[in-house]
Amino acid sequence: MATLKDIEVAAAINILSAFAFLVAFAFLRLQPINDRVYFPKWYLKGLRNSPLGSGAFVGKFINLDFRSYVRFLNWMPAALQMPEPELIDHAGLDSAVYLRIYLVGLKIFVPIAFLAFAVMVPVNWTNGTLELEHSTLVYSDIDKLSISNIPKGSPRFWTHLVMAYAFTFWTCYVLKKEYEIVASMRLHFLASEQRRPDQFTVLVRNVPPDPDESVNELVEHFFLVNHPDHYLTYQVVYNANKLSDLVKEQKKLRNWLDFYQLKYSRNQSRRPSTKTGFLGLCGERVDAIDLYTSKIEGLSEAITSERDKIMNNPKSIMPAAFVSFKTRWAAAVCAQTQQSRNPTIWLTEWAPEPCDVYWDNLAIPYVSLTIRRLIVAVAFFFLTFFFMIPIAFVQSLANIEGIEKAVPFLRPIIELKGVKSLIQGFLPGIALKIFLIFLPSILMLMSKFEGFISISALERRSATRYYIFQFINVFLGSIITGTAFQQLHNFMNQRANDIPKTIGVSIPMKATFFITYIMVDGWAGIAGEILMLKPLIIFHLKNFFLVKTEKDREEAMDPGSLGFNTGEPQIQLYFLLGLVYAVVTPILLPFIIVFFGLAYMVYRHQIINVYNQEYESAAAFWPDVHGRIIVALIVSQLLLMGLLSTKEAAQSTPFLIALPVLTIWFHMFCKGRYEPAFVRYPLQEARMKDTLERAREPNLNLKGFLQNAYIHPVFKKADDSESDAASEDSDQGPNLVPTKRQSQRGTPFPSKHSGSSSSLLPEAVQEH
Amino acid sequence: MATLKDIEVAAAINILSAFAFLVAFAFLRLQPINDRVYFPKWYLKGLRNSPLGSGAFVGKFINLDFRSYVRFLNWMPAALQMPEPELIDHAGLDSAVYLRIYLVGLKIFVPIAFLAFAVMVPVNWTNGTLELEHSTLVYSDIDKLSISNIPKGSPRFWTHLVMAYAFTFWTCYVLKKEYEIVASMRLHFLASEQRRPDQFTVLVRNVPPDPDESVNELVEHFFLVNHPDHYLTYQVVYNANKLSDLVKEQKKLRNWLDFYQLKYSRNQSRRPSTKTGFLGLCGERVDAIDLYTSKIEGLSEAITSERDKIMNNPKSIMPAAFVSFKTRWAAAVCAQTQQSRNPTIWLTEWAPEPCDVYWDNLAIPYVSLTIRRLIVAVAFFFLTFFFMIPIAFVQSLANIEGIEKAVPFLRPIIELKGVKSLIQGFLPGIALKIFLIFLPSILMLMSKFEGFISISALERRSATRYYIFQFINVFLGSIITGTAFQQLHNFMNQRANDIPKTIGVSIPMKATFFITYIMVDGWAGIAGEILMLKPLIIFHLKNFFLVKTEKDREEAMDPGSLGFNTGEPQIQLYFLLGLVYAVVTPILLPFIIVFFGLAYMVYRHQIINVYNQEYESAAAFWPDVHGRIIVALIVSQLLLMGLLSTKEAAQSTPFLIALPVLTIWFHMFCKGRYEPAFVRYPLQEARMKDTLERAREPNLNLKGFLQNAYIHPVFKKADDSESDAASEDSDQGPNLVPTKRQSQRGTPFPSKHSGSSSSLLPEAVQEH
Repeated sequence: MATLKDIEVAAAINILSAFAFLVAFAFLRLQPINDRVYFPKWYLKGLRNSPLGSGAFVGKFINLDFRSYVRFLNWMPAALQMPEPELIDHAGLDSAVYLRIYLVGLKIFVPIAFLAFAVMVPVNWTNGTLELEHSTLVYSDIDKLSISNIPKGSPRFWTHLVMAYAFTFWTCYVLKKEYEIVASMRLHFLASEQRRPDQFTVLVRNVPPDPDESVNELVEHFFLVNHPDHYLTYQVVYNANKLSDLVKEQKKLRNWLDFYQLKYSRNQSRRPSTKTGFLGLCGERVDAIDLYTSKIEGLSEAITSERDKIMNNPKSIMPAAFVSFKTRWAAAVCAQTQQSRNPTIWLTEWAPEPCDVYWDNLAIPYVSLTIRRLIVAVAFFFLTFFFMIPIAFVQSLANIEGIEKAVPFLRPIIELKGVKSLIQGFLPGIALKIFLIFLPSILMLMSKFEGFISISALERRSATRYYIFQFINVFLGSIITGTAFQQLHNFMNQRANDIPKTIGVSIPMKATFFITYIMVDGWAGIAGEILMLKPLIIFHLKNFFLVKTEKDREEAMDPGSLGFNTGEPQIQLYFLLGLVYAVVTPILLPFIIVFFGLAYMVYRHQIINVYNQEYESAAAFWPDVHGRIIVALIVSQLLLMGLLSTKEAAQSTPFLIALPVLTIWFHMFCKGRYEPAFVRYPLQEARMKDTLERAREPNLNLKGFLQNAYIHPVFKKADDSESDAASEDSDQGPNLVPTKRQSQRGTPFPSKHSGSSSSLLPEAVQEH
Repeated sequence: MATLKDIEVAAAINILSAFAFLVAFAFLRLQPINDRVYFPKWYLKGLRNSPLGSGAFVGKFINLDFRSYVRFLNWMPAALQMPEPELIDHAGLDSAVYLRIYLVGLKIFVPIAFLAFAVMVPVNWTNGTLELEHSTLVYSDIDKLSISNIPKGSPRFWTHLVMAYAFTFWTCYVLKKEYEIVASMRLHFLASEQRRPDQFTVLVRNVPPDPDESVNELVEHFFLVNHPDHYLTYQVVYNANKLSDLVKEQKKLRNWLDFYQLKYSRNQSRRPSTKTGFLGLCGERVDAIDLYTSKIEGLSEAITSERDKIMNNPKSIMPAAFVSFKTRWAAAVCAQTQQSRNPTIWLTEWAPEPCDVYWDNLAIPYVSLTIRRLIVAVAFFFLTFFFMIPIAFVQSLANIEGIEKAVPFLRPIIELKGVKSLIQGFLPGIALKIFLIFLPSILMLMSKFEGFISISALERRSATRYYIFQFINVFLGSIITGTAFQQLHNFMNQRANDIPKTIGVSIPMKATFFITYIMVDGWAGIAGEILMLKPLIIFHLKNFFLVKTEKDREEAMDPGSLGFNTGEPQIQLYFLLGLVYAVVTPILLPFIIVFFGLAYMVYRHQIINVYNQEYESAAAFWPDVHGRIIVALIVSQLLLMGLLSTKEAAQSTPFLIALPVLTIWFHMFCKGRYEPAFVRYPLQEARMKDTLERAREPNLNLKGFLQNAYIHPVFKKADDSESDAASEDSDQGPNLVPTKRQSQRGTPFPSKHSGSSSSLLPEAVQEH
């Protein structure tokens, strides 16, 4: 067990590395050359143009104004300044509510920490159990502050019992308040929003096949009959997967063309050439620009013919459609009701936002959906409990002997003593590490296979799975060391009563481990997030090799997005740790509070300046967040029950049983009270908006507005890129034309709050 | 362990007693005096009038036609003759579908029994394990047919594994088919039904309080705004609980008045008198007829004033209303959507049928509902696991010494040896027996407290609870003897793996017990049901003391109803036993098949001739029935897994794990595929019915039809009884006037199928 000293050292290292990241960030972000990496959001919003071109040539790339370095931590207050309504306006409700998760963490744990330090630390500290009992053993100072220091059967455990009640009630209170706020924010957001196609549109799936009518006719007839007063129009869904592959291919080729054109423009003496064979490594040598131009032309033709085919062949129409109504009221009605006698056909649900649609999954029939769900459930079970088996297999293959056999010429190097031990220490971990890096993608693939129809739903489901995986393999796996499968085996062979006991007993002993974990993963990890190392490198690579025009540069930016499917489960792990250790080892709480505070600031900055949310689900994820905090609460109560029962404080157990019962009841209450706001759309609201709109715009052409709202992105993109390609060739020529930096000029969407938002623009803009 | 001989004896006894019941029934039902007990359904339908009055005086009461006794089992084919569509017409869909539960039992178990006897009995029988291993122990012949006879680790267990798969697939197949049939029956029933108020009406609960508007105005305004094109009318709900108490009191007094008037009319020499004090035992002696007449008059005034108060006092209007719409489509829309931003107010749901409404629960606010649910859940947990504690306490009080102290003058009798041992054997059981008799009522009270708003929902929830109670206390309690609490304690202290093992191992040993149980509870119990002993006695008592007019006699009939809350859980116990023992001890199956066959016949007879269903829920209970059979299936699979793992057939366990997974998946599939038909009302159907109706009856006055559909029964009844009382006094006078028996005459509702149904009328009618 680590002593306080060890923790101090670890804390110092992690604080230093976090600080180093922050300083590096502060330095890098002030360089104009990195402007597009650290402020892409403003570029995308059109509020900021290229920083290049002002001042001297060097000034284009490096910030020479030393005064700005003095205020290098200025981004922190700047990130906190933007008020929430403006933040919603700027980055969407999803991001604003995502930040509230961190705030909930602070709201829950700051008062709990104060209470715990005021009451429980003295109660724990003033015992001498560890000194007496383990006088021969090494015990840590941390443990003196924890529940371990209290003798068995001591009446002092009543303090912990009362505290468990207090913490539960406080957490539930915060959760209820927050659910209420988020629900009303969501409804307010939906109500105050501008007219959007998804408000009027319902996605219809599983249109039954009919030998006499096409899908178009079927949909039109069905809704004309069943919603005669409200039906407006529909858009069928085309199976454009092949077309979208072709367009992707074309884009890749165009990148290569750009690369060679750029190469030629820099060195006009020699036209670049490439080989036609595999990866350009073998085959005939030809002129690269000509090759790619002709290839692109060929693909363009293929794309055109494929598009014609899709448009004209009735078989490429999928049995799904976006049906639009004259009023929001009618759309709300259609989305919430069952249409047909057979509940597996004519399935209606709210259409996701157009950019939230996951097009590939729109046409999966009902039976296939249920089978996919079963397969994924079984696969996830095996993934969670048996993922170590293939990794162990890979590890057994990838040992030093194997490598020496595979690449014998490296043997002398490997046999060096230092290198050998490095590889031996490094190799077993690398397979696991690679697996963990790919895990979110694997889970995402599973969700895609399962058939969800919107990206937001995909991310929510992946987040749930990731949380379960982390709970079993990180939380339980760290407490009772052993793989998940071993745990499963143990649990099956344990008395039901003993499961919380086994875990409960190990909990106080693992406090120091988790403190270090929080500092590494939470503090340094979050500070690393703000540095955006990967996008930084990729941007500069792209910038050097591909960028010709301002538009290319825009495409080279990779602002990324919040990544709900990986970010939220990570936060939830901290909630879990905080709630579990609040009663047991309260010394852990300050570390968690620092995590929540730092993460809140960093992500607020990122959301304001960097991330570009792909979709807007209007905080549809909050019920999941709420539910998982409740799960953490119940786990903490069960584990405390197990722990106390081993401490011979059995008389307190009955009082603890009431806690999970009450918590589950609280969850059901919240579910009934607030969840409908996230699932259904009240008719009253819809009617209100309809009436208002009719009064304001009596002559609105809604049909025109909705006609082409739900077109497969590949049709839109193809249009864009073709017209772009044409304009590029004719207007700007192949050469790079550095445009003047025009801060706040030529803004397509003027900010409503330009007064306040200008003060929030990073200093780099204001300095120049 | 019982031998085959013991079983044979028990079977003989039970078959004889069942036979005796059937003979007694056959005899009693042919007596005209019992006609109203055994054929009340026909009286209620108006298809049969009083049998009294034809032939000689004795012939009024006793059937003297000896020919009819020869064909005393004729009711059986008669019960089976009525085709299902006519049965639905005659007794409602609920009853017809209820009978299908027995049919499902036959469909599942007959093929399973054939397969089991063809395959598994030989496999089990040809082993000699029991002879070898337990040569010193007594083993039964039954056990030689069961899985116990197979040696540990034998490859023969593969047979059982394959059979478990076959039985599961067969059961699921039958269940799916049946769910499909019942769902389409329900939809067809709803579609072909005549116009009913509940098709157009939605129950709105939790109307929010408003200081400026009354509930009436609020409801009207809200729906005029949010469903402007469809809203038709509304009816508020009055708090008439006090009034209904008064009416009940009045009815009781009128019964007494009738009793004394009858007494006087029989013996006109002396006017009957009573005492005014407690229970008529003490106080002043007064003329009974005058006393009750004046009492009834006083109450009538109180009722009138209370009715005026309810009608005029806005405080007696509850925050709930029945809102009616112009079309079925609009009602379906309103019932399926969320109305208000706050999901706990303006709650809409399908209005139950008018006679299915449970009026007392209409005004419970949302928060109170969730709290009630918590309280009931906790109470039910304690009821299930700790019900033995108060009973043991009562038992300890009610011992012989206690009785001797309380009633010392009985001591000489009690001290007699025979009596003493009888009481000692009898007393401990009686408290438990009384508890078990009252259990359904206790569970019903719980459901009422929980706040369901329709009688059908109350019965469904009570049935679920009763099933859980039976599963834990009868099924598990018989297998591992001990109270439920002891079991709970054992389970908590057992390895998770061991729980199915513990139960699984005891299962083969309990086969003989359950065979006897089936014969007593299933065979003799069902045969006793048809005898209707309790209604028979009560009818004759009432007939003697109270009946003056034909109408009184009608009221004296107590046809009863199916009693879903007690009947269905009993059937489910047989499903559970059948599925659990199908693989383990197939000899049990024939007993279960006989139960299902006998019960099907008996209940078909009862439904045709006796029961009068209070409400019609259109088979809304089927998802529950389906779900519980699935539970039985999963339990049987888990127990088989436990049993096989103790038989050292561990290699088969992985194959068994797939079974519950597949079964759960099957359940989820069915839930998605068929359950919506029982919860929602598809818009397509609604629109179709609306269009048809508009074409047929373009000038329909729907408002008039719906205006008074949902009136608290007490208002209706009060009207009825007052007018009745008046008509009785004036028209018929106080004397009993035996009316002529008029078979098939004066029928208010002529049967559509009078040709076929007349042949179904009991012979007694046809004979005379």
